Amino acid sequence: MSYVKEDFLLNTPEAKELYFGYAKNMPIFDYHCHLSEYQILENKPFNDLYEIWLSGDHYKWRLMRNYGIDEELITGKKTNKEKFITYCEVLSTAFGNPLYHWSQIELETFFGCKHEINKENAELIWNECNEYIKTHQIRPSDLISSSNVTHLFTTNEIFDDLEVFSKIKEKRYSFEVLPAFRADKVMNIEAQKYNEFIDILQNKTFEIKDLDSLEKAVINRLELFIKAGCLASDTALQAVYEITTKEKAKEIFAKRRNGEVISSIESNQFKGYFTYFLLREYGKRKIVSELHIGAMRNNSQKMFDRLGLDCGNDSIAEENSIKNLSKLMDKLDLEGYLPPMIIFNLNPKMNLEIATLIGSYQDDSKRGKIQFGPAWWFLDHLKGIRNQLEDLSSVGHLGAFVGMLTDSRSFLSYPRHHYFRRILCDYLGEMMNKGLITNDIEKVGKVVEDICYNNAVKYFSVR
Amino acid sequence: MSYVKEDFLLNTPEAKELYFGYAKNMPIFDYHCHLSEYQILENKPFNDLYEIWLSGDHYKWRLMRNYGIDEELITGKKTNKEKFITYCEVLSTAFGNPLYHWSQIELETFFGCKHEINKENAELIWNECNEYIKTHQIRPSDLISSSNVTHLFTTNEIFDDLEVFSKIKEKRYSFEVLPAFRADKVMNIEAQKYNEFIDILQNKTFEIKDLDSLEKAVINRLELFIKAGCLASDTALQAVYEITTKEKAKEIFAKRRNGEVISSIESNQFKGYFTYFLLREYGKRKIVSELHIGAMRNNSQKMFDRLGLDCGNDSIAEENSIKNLSKLMDKLDLEGYLPPMIIFNLNPKMNLEIATLIGSYQDDSKRGKIQFGPAWWFLDHLKGIRNQLEDLSSVGHLGAFVGMLTDSRSFLSYPRHHYFRRILCDYLGEMMNKGLITNDIEKVGKVVEDICYNNAVKYFSVR
Amino acid sequence: MSYVKEDFLLNTPEAKELYFGYAKNMPIFDYHCHLSEYQILENKPFNDLYEIWLSGDHYKWRLMRNYGIDEELITGKKTNKEKFITYCEVLSTAFGNPLYHWSQIELETFFGCKHEINKENAELIWNECNEYIKTHQIRPSDLISSSNVTHLFTTNEIFDDLEVFSKIKEKRYSFEVLPAFRADKVMNIEAQKYNEFIDILQNKTFEIKDLDSLEKAVINRLELFIKAGCLASDTALQAVYEITTKEKAKEIFAKRRNGEVISSIESNQFKGYFTYFLLREYGKRKIVSELHIGAMRNNSQKMFDRLGLDCGNDSIAEENSIKNLSKLMDKLDLEGYLPPMIIFNLNPKMNLEIATLIGSYQDDSKRGKIQFGPAWWFLDHLKGIRNQLEDLSSVGHLGAFVGMLTDSRSFLSYPRHHYFRRILCDYLGEMMNKGLITNDIEKVGKVVEDICYNNAVKYFSVR
Repeated sequence: MSYVKEDFLLNTPEAKELYFGYAKNMPIFDYHCHLSEYQILENKPFNDLYEIWLSGDHYKWRLMRNYGIDEELITGKKTNKEKFITYCEVLSTAFGNPLYHWSQIELETFFGCKHEINKENAELIWNECNEYIKTHQIRPSDLISSSNVTHLFTTNEIFDDLEVFSKIKEKRYSFEVLPAFRADKVMNIEAQKYNEFIDILQNKTFEIKDLDSLEKAVINRLELFIKAGCLASDTALQAVYEITTKEKAKEIFAKRRNGEVISSIESNQFKGYFTYFLLREYGKRKIVSELHIGAMRNNSQKMFDRLGLDCGNDSIAEENSIKNLSKLMDKLDLEGYLPPMIIFNLNPKMNLEIATLIGSYQDDSKRGKIQFGPAWWFLDHLKGIRNQLEDLSSVGHLGAFVGMLTDSRSFLSYPRHHYFRRILCDYLGEMMNKGLITNDIEKVGKVVEDICYNNAVKYFSVR
Repeated sequence: MSYVKEDFLLNTPEAKELYFGYAKNMPIFDYHCHLSEYQILENKPFNDLYEIWLSGDHYKWRLMRNYGIDEELITGKKTNKEKFITYCEVLSTAFGNPLYHWSQIELETFFGCKHEINKENAELIWNECNEYIKTHQIRPSDLISSSNVTHLFTTNEIFDDLEVFSKIKEKRYSFEVLPAFRADKVMNIEAQKYNEFIDILQNKTFEIKDLDSLEKAVINRLELFIKAGCLASDTALQAVYEITTKEKAKEIFAKRRNGEVISSIESNQFKGYFTYFLLREYGKRKIVSELHIGAMRNNSQKMFDRLGLDCGNDSIAEENSIKNLSKLMDKLDLEGYLPPMIIFNLNPKMNLEIATLIGSYQDDSKRGKIQFGPAWWFLDHLKGIRNQLEDLSSVGHLGAFVGMLTDSRSFLSYPRHHYFRRILCDYLGEMMNKGLITNDIEKVGKVVEDICYNNAVKYFSVR
Repeated sequence: MSYVKEDFLLNTPEAKELYFGYAKNMPIFDYHCHLSEYQILENKPFNDLYEIWLSGDHYKWRLMRNYGIDEELITGKKTNKEKFITYCEVLSTAFGNPLYHWSQIELETFFGCKHEINKENAELIWNECNEYIKTHQIRPSDLISSSNVTHLFTTNEIFDDLEVFSKIKEKRYSFEVLPAFRADKVMNIEAQKYNEFIDILQNKTFEIKDLDSLEKAVINRLELFIKAGCLASDTALQAVYEITTKEKAKEIFAKRRNGEVISSIESNQFKGYFTYFLLREYGKRKIVSELHIGAMRNNSQKMFDRLGLDCGNDSIAEENSIKNLSKLMDKLDLEGYLPPMIIFNLNPKMNLEIATLIGSYQDDSKRGKIQFGPAWWFLDHLKGIRNQLEDLSSVGHLGAFVGMLTDSRSFLSYPRHHYFRRILCDYLGEMMNKGLITNDIEKVGKVVEDICYNNAVKYFSVR
């Protein structure tokens, strides 16, 4: 029997009352994930547990690599079952890793599996879950609906097709699927395929002969996204770069389009200008800007050559960006175009830098207009989530927080919202229990409900 | 009824014994605050709760902004009562923010208010506290005396008048008020008003035609401060800059006095030299140097234009300074002029860098000559205070610590000392309770008393 | 009576079961220490408690300095007994400092002393322990054997004599003593005595007229170390520097050998190249590379002039190295020569940067080939150890961890392994107790045993 009990993570009576009385039944507003809109549209039943659970999850691959597993058993030629059984064995002693919790909870939540995941039980779990998946004809929409999701934002490249979203609408699912706008591919000027990406955008819009026409093309796409229901944009940066002049950015862009080599300084300069340009356009249209900082990506050339992007060979970056981020926000704010922002930070050493920074750019257009985003990616674990909550609370206002996201590629990841909610309730319940806050459970419960769902609904001004 | 109980923050029997038996009745030595010496001298009764509590407190403003409150209700044209009621509403869900605790405790400590602060009780609290303030004719000296303060250091600009301190002495209050010397205005060469400040200093002293005469003027003022009882100096820097040569500093000063534009590199060079100059002079006179590092100030031009300095639009800086700080201290130490120093750090990622650094420059002239200062400003909360205590203890000697300060602009802030003391007693009590330190309560109690008061008295060699 | 009880640091029944049932009796594999191989060989009885305990321990000196003790009572002319008594007094209120624990435990473990260390008991302890040392003729090998050590790696300079290790073998102690290879003296090109060190190496090998011959000499020594049983190398860097070209390194080396002054940029460039060279050679021979980063050394010129290296005047460095470290590892990995690495980090703000970085360079040649090393030096305390365990677990795989080392100059330091083990068992026991991991005690116990000893045995492929 699994070690996960009903009161998992809830260490006080108050925590239990908050979770079961307030948090548990709130719907989910998933304002950033990497689910495939095509899979949601097609809605085909899954084949087996490997496909639904292991095939695309670089968190799990990474854990196996850390345990010294042969890559053939991770992403290589071994069978699905062999890979699954190896994963179960590796997981069974990954104490303290969030996958240890998530994996157990996911199999129980969606397939009723109560067996503890380990080598001994692996074959049994494989058989029972596969049986369940086949018998129940599990489809993507089932997993989303049963998780009580009302809205989810997929992450879309600037040149992605948008028709798929109106087709999804026609399916009349119990949840809305909206695109989030991501222009990283036309910003990351150092990428090998940069010119290809610009060409794709060109084909979708009009001739891109210089920075001016690139900007027009970006705006053109952004407005089509908004027509398709887009409420949020997404930008990922290792660090926030200094804003350079448009003239400089123009030159660099021309150079790059000409096939010339650009330096890493030039690349950062271009990104510094382009981040500013993008955020200003988001600000003009009141589109939320979700900014992801602090990741160092594709550290291993060997693994990149073998598997490509997003395969578990990334880490937390050391670079600081706070001064540049401050200047960027200040400039946009002065110009009147600072968009609502959610700043996701991957390096906890910067938590308080960001949690205090946001206080300088708030206004009354939105409660918590500038947000210190929830613990994310490498920080999405017990300690990381608790730290983000404590840091935000200590220097900001917890009651204004828009709460959790999944950021996942997997349809089985919605329990992460409940992982977060349990930690939130445990934090507030502990404070009640110790006499550190009011003992008015309804007041605290209201804050819990707001953070779980209501704040996000208001923040994104759902239409 | 307020959630704050007698054993607030004290989680073990040992913690309670330490607080009630040792900490609670120790006097307060407030070695750094921003109280107005003129208000202390004039000692006029306050008018209402807004004036005494909200009118000048940028911590509270910031919290309201983070909750999306209209600036008119914070620093704008709305009535005192409307602002107060809004603050109460915002505060009531700011769980985990130290203001949530401080606000509740301050109203109880000084005005006997036991109502929980929230929207529903706001009007009642407003009326009762105002009634109390009027009936009791509450004056600054009452608030200080009733807090059991024996010494307080105001923070004074280099050109501030000093007569006021002898006039305060004549009032024969139960506490001493001494000036701390702050030369930041003549160091921060990049400030718009820099030349005006030099002119003011010139009017107070003699002609300042170059860096040599500036230094003489600084020394002249410093000695007058010492005559007025000054025991400490105060320096705030975003980061500690490299020491440049006096020749270079001379040039930059001449340039600036000539009205020429100086670069940010030059400004940092000047500060690098001038910090060294100041500390050397403090060292020669054995004046404690309180060094504040890690703040990034005035992030929002929009708010600076509206409200000016110190209005809640600052944050924690990312910059590191440890190598420069080490070089500065090493040079002063070699020259025999390293002053006693209290290093206040605003960025917890640097806590252990500083807590270990101080160990390289101690000597037997004073117990804990170089101090890792208490948690300050954005860190002055449950987690920040506990972290500073743990970090200091883990790599240094807790028993040598000079303890808490208020750093406040408000006469109601003395309960922060008891907030700190409760956390200190809880930390030590927990260690006793878990068998991690001696169970000799008197020995531990002695350390508590020392940190609360005795160490500071000795450290500042009160005359 | 000492406050240290049998269940010291073990806060749950599960923690106790894990420690007493699994951890306590595991042998010790000490894969990095600074014990003297000559002292082990000579194996002379100690004279008194000062010699065995205080004479070479800069951790203790540092604590005394932080408390304002006169240097004469630390490393100066006062008697051994006076120094000892002063240390006891200082220690008695150093609550939260690991020395407070270690000191108490060491005297009990090796000399049966149960008295609480403080001023009052100091003389009694001095007399009783000295009596014990004399009566029992305590020798180095007794202290190692009774600690259940099976292997220990001393840290050896590249030009150290290696015969001593075969002579130790002949002594047939119950433990193996192996040299670890350290080439820092020929890497740290900025050191005053650099050319002297190269000359010593030259005398040990052959003429070193340029970088090529230096490299050959290094390889020559490395292979002799391997013949002497060496399984690990050791490299200490304040930060990891960018790899420069061999041509550049050649020039800098030539310049330095010529007696010319080199800049700090050049010195870092040389080190950047030389670190790469060393690690590649280790990788070719599958020698574990133990990399120590994050220390800023010899901060005080005054104390360096008085006492030299390693005298307690170091601190935690601020510099970041993660990007360079990543590039270094990536290059070596691509070339097929990435050695197994244990990265020891002294700055906790980098913990998660490193704990995530290692995941990019794992392979199936060894379980946990790239290790985030245990808490070390300034972090070797309750909070630091717990943090390292939590950070590693949260983003990596705890089960693959090779565990603790002593890093000590003292023969009394082996209880540090049990300090670590208790904290490990407390961490895992707490998770069991809270229902956060399996309640299968044998499974968890197996992980404990692996981390305590088995993983290190496998990792170092003991021959």
